[in-house]
Amino acid sequence: MKIRVGFGYDVHRLADNRELWLGGVKIDHTQGLMGHSDADVLIHAICDALLGAANLRDIGFHFPDTAGEYKDIDSKILLARTLEVITEKGYRIGNIDATICAERPKINPHIPQMQKVMAGILEISEEDISIKATTSEKMGFVGREEGFAAYAVALIEK
Amino acid sequence: MKIRVGFGYDVHRLADNRELWLGGVKIDHTQGLMGHSDADVLIHAICDALLGAANLRDIGFHFPDTAGEYKDIDSKILLARTLEVITEKGYRIGNIDATICAERPKINPHIPQMQKVMAGILEISEEDISIKATTSEKMGFVGREEGFAAYAVALIEK
Amino acid sequence: MKIRVGFGYDVHRLADNRELWLGGVKIDHTQGLMGHSDADVLIHAICDALLGAANLRDIGFHFPDTAGEYKDIDSKILLARTLEVITEKGYRIGNIDATICAERPKINPHIPQMQKVMAGILEISEEDISIKATTSEKMGFVGREEGFAAYAVALIEK
Ligand SMILES: [Zn+2]
Ligand SMILES: [Zn+2]
Ligand SMILES: [Zn+2]
Repeated sequence: MKIRVGFGYDVHRLADNRELWLGGVKIDHTQGLMGHSDADVLIHAICDALLGAANLRDIGFHFPDTAGEYKDIDSKILLARTLEVITEKGYRIGNIDATICAERPKINPHIPQMQKVMAGILEISEEDISIKATTSEKMGFVGREEGFAAYAVALIEK
Repeated sequence: MKIRVGFGYDVHRLADNRELWLGGVKIDHTQGLMGHSDADVLIHAICDALLGAANLRDIGFHFPDTAGEYKDIDSKILLARTLEVITEKGYRIGNIDATICAERPKINPHIPQMQKVMAGILEISEEDISIKATTSEKMGFVGREEGFAAYAVALIEK
Repeated sequence: MKIRVGFGYDVHRLADNRELWLGGVKIDHTQGLMGHSDADVLIHAICDALLGAANLRDIGFHFPDTAGEYKDIDSKILLARTLEVITEKGYRIGNIDATICAERPKINPHIPQMQKVMAGILEISEEDISIKATTSEKMGFVGREEGFAAYAVALIEK
């Protein structure tokens, strides 16, 4: 068995009049994340960790933000497509561990639902996808509530 | 054998009249890190990498900063408790690699002592816990000396 | 077989009248990265991930920026030396996944050449070194074009 590691990092700006989607779950908040897709920064970081582990470039390469077909797309579709391309290359997912950096709102109550949604799409156990959340203690662009960041690592196996 | 990866990220603000604790070691500096516990940002990132790898949520979940019992607690106790919960779940630590981002003071001279202290608590060889340090080249909140950040990755095995 | 994980993070400031080197490739841009060496932030993050995985300290420890011999050095030489020290310790590289954070210029067209150059130096297949690029959506020091950041993870085996 060959094991490989991947790392993903993504950021999106906060804006008024946008829905907030994180880990495939809609969360009540005064603002949402801005982007060509639904801007689900957590799903994007996870896609990049999986694609990077499989040496399949990144989410911007597969789903370019200049392509009309991805305008406002549900990131859960991008996650499903990511599973397809790594599976086609012969890999299966070992485990995923991700961290959301957001000053507000409280993320922790939504984590079990995010795990359920993403594990379902990725056809893995909820045990194999961990999500953590942290603030930036009011420092930096996350701390000033200009945007959110997300990190993810993943192991895949062949 | 099943191998899993985890990732931790933590930040704390610098403040006057606080002790600076990093990796379980007290370091002489003009300021210290602020937090509910002793604010040892390196130990916290390592706890989160281990907990994330084991899908056991994160340090804020196990040791909430609203709980009086954790006020000003020595983070070495949190590290020991983290080892307990991952061991109870059947995991042992493979290796840990962590990075402290701090503009000042010089961290490098303290790294061997941090490795010794944390390896002792985690019941691993010093060979299995690596610590690195970098500045932020005077950029961002770390570069402005508003705070420190720390990253950690870990492999655990069952 | 023993598998270990490492993580690297590096940042450098942008400045006028400097060449821009990333992943061992010279890229046309209005500015370049500043540092004691050629400031190849991507190679430095990858060196640190490999050194950290092998518990061999970090790039600043092996190649101190106070040493005249490393002034303006080509980071490809540091990468080759990193391979030497991890090989001497009995490790071989499993895979590497790295992310460049830069607001401008477009990095993606240069990625295949970076993979080729670094895989050659590291004596691995291009399949085993993945590179991704992202902007910081005009936020933070990367978004203000003060500098670039890079992250890398690596698996090594003994
Ligand atoms: Zn995104
Ligand atoms: Zn903390
Ligand atoms: Zn550097």
